[in-house]
Amino acid sequence: MNTATMTPSEIRRLIRDGRITGPTAGMCAGYAQANLVVLPKELAYDFLLFAQRNPKSCPLLEVSDTGERLLNTIAKGADIATDIPLYRIYRDGNLEQETTDISEYWRGDFVSFLIGCSFSFEAALLEADIPVRHIEEGCNVPMYRTNIPCTPAGIFHGNMVVSMRPIPMELIPRSILITGEMPRVHGFPVHIGSPERIGIHNLGQPDYGDMVTVRDGEVPVFWPCGVTPQNVVMESRPPFAITHAPGHMFITDIKNTLLKY
Amino acid sequence: MNTATMTPSEIRRLIRDGRITGPTAGMCAGYAQANLVVLPKELAYDFLLFAQRNPKSCPLLEVSDTGERLLNTIAKGADIATDIPLYRIYRDGNLEQETTDISEYWRGDFVSFLIGCSFSFEAALLEADIPVRHIEEGCNVPMYRTNIPCTPAGIFHGNMVVSMRPIPMELIPRSILITGEMPRVHGFPVHIGSPERIGIHNLGQPDYGDMVTVRDGEVPVFWPCGVTPQNVVMESRPPFAITHAPGHMFITDIKNTLLKY
Repeated sequence: MNTATMTPSEIRRLIRDGRITGPTAGMCAGYAQANLVVLPKELAYDFLLFAQRNPKSCPLLEVSDTGERLLNTIAKGADIATDIPLYRIYRDGNLEQETTDISEYWRGDFVSFLIGCSFSFEAALLEADIPVRHIEEGCNVPMYRTNIPCTPAGIFHGNMVVSMRPIPMELIPRSILITGEMPRVHGFPVHIGSPERIGIHNLGQPDYGDMVTVRDGEVPVFWPCGVTPQNVVMESRPPFAITHAPGHMFITDIKNTLLKY
Repeated sequence: MNTATMTPSEIRRLIRDGRITGPTAGMCAGYAQANLVVLPKELAYDFLLFAQRNPKSCPLLEVSDTGERLLNTIAKGADIATDIPLYRIYRDGNLEQETTDISEYWRGDFVSFLIGCSFSFEAALLEADIPVRHIEEGCNVPMYRTNIPCTPAGIFHGNMVVSMRPIPMELIPRSILITGEMPRVHGFPVHIGSPERIGIHNLGQPDYGDMVTVRDGEVPVFWPCGVTPQNVVMESRPPFAITHAPGHMFITDIKNTLLKY
């Protein structure tokens, strides 16, 4: 089956039925994918405020009603407890287990936060013939913890995580303009060229994902990353939280192009 | 004194000292102004969620910490209880009084929401020689209740309020592009040309503000308006709320241009 040309609702059904349990990169070309954070209502205000104060790393696409598994805006009727291929369950900030279905963990006080994903702007970069190295090399994007503090809110605090793409020098302005048009999926880069200035001391050793080749004439460019909220949730150690597993995203009904407007 | 060329902190000091108590239109050219809603913490989650779900009418520029009078982001150290020329106090959705200082009403459970204002994009329209009729005619912008429902959140619900500017037909595309660049101050129009389609049956009788002349060859263009959150607060009848008085805005340290990025 060609998952790139299937509709989001077709793919979500296969995920719900347990027939897709792997990463979602490349599925449903043209449609936005989203990061997930689920928290109990008593922590939801702090996290919603954290996202408002850190829109570059935590651009919210939808926040569910309390206890409501079905989404309303980015994928009407999708079930957040079953429609992601792989989830992670955290207690006190520690990863406890991974599971393909969180129905049995669902509680009436859960709130789901869906956060934009840079998969959307990568499609736009490729469209403009700007290379996306980890796609070329068939691996995960390299991600790094930085020394850039997020603005804290309530119990939530931590530094920004960034994703890195090596960009040919002459294409940097265009890559900034293209990603800058899409603030709901992280927008323009947070840093260009000097990893050590943002606390990254070994570019060859990403904290998440895989290293990619940086070629002669290319500069490492760093974008705010959707792993930031997961990282913040882990650092802030809430009693209970659920996220998606990295790369195993929620596929929305929203076309990437519409995220600009 | 020339309030257009003074700095935001100079003007805020005059406001704090009670020497400016009138509307702020035209003050501190180039700097963004903001709408205010103050609510007790127990209603803050619902309102923050309402704003997240209705970013066109309620674009948040800053949300204070609970009980904190001093702002941190859009005007570091400004006192939200004294630095607005005129406030409105509502009980159960009813306007109870207006006052120039809310210090004596301040409570440790208050949260302040600062919301973007279309004054910012009006400066950009004028810069591009697009007429802004209510500025030409020296009156308030006409505002109307519509039949466009906001997405509800918790106790908060209500229809969108829009502001209207008559735009010469040939300048409509440019006015859309300019305002579309500034989503944090309401962004592109929500409707163009047929007031009755959005529930406005008498263009000559705005629900707020003043009527302006619509000339031959001009079309009424409607933008989401910062009065929406006030209107929603009134319709939803929270036990207690404070807002700014219309036109008497909070002047931020943020340049309008920076709202684009």
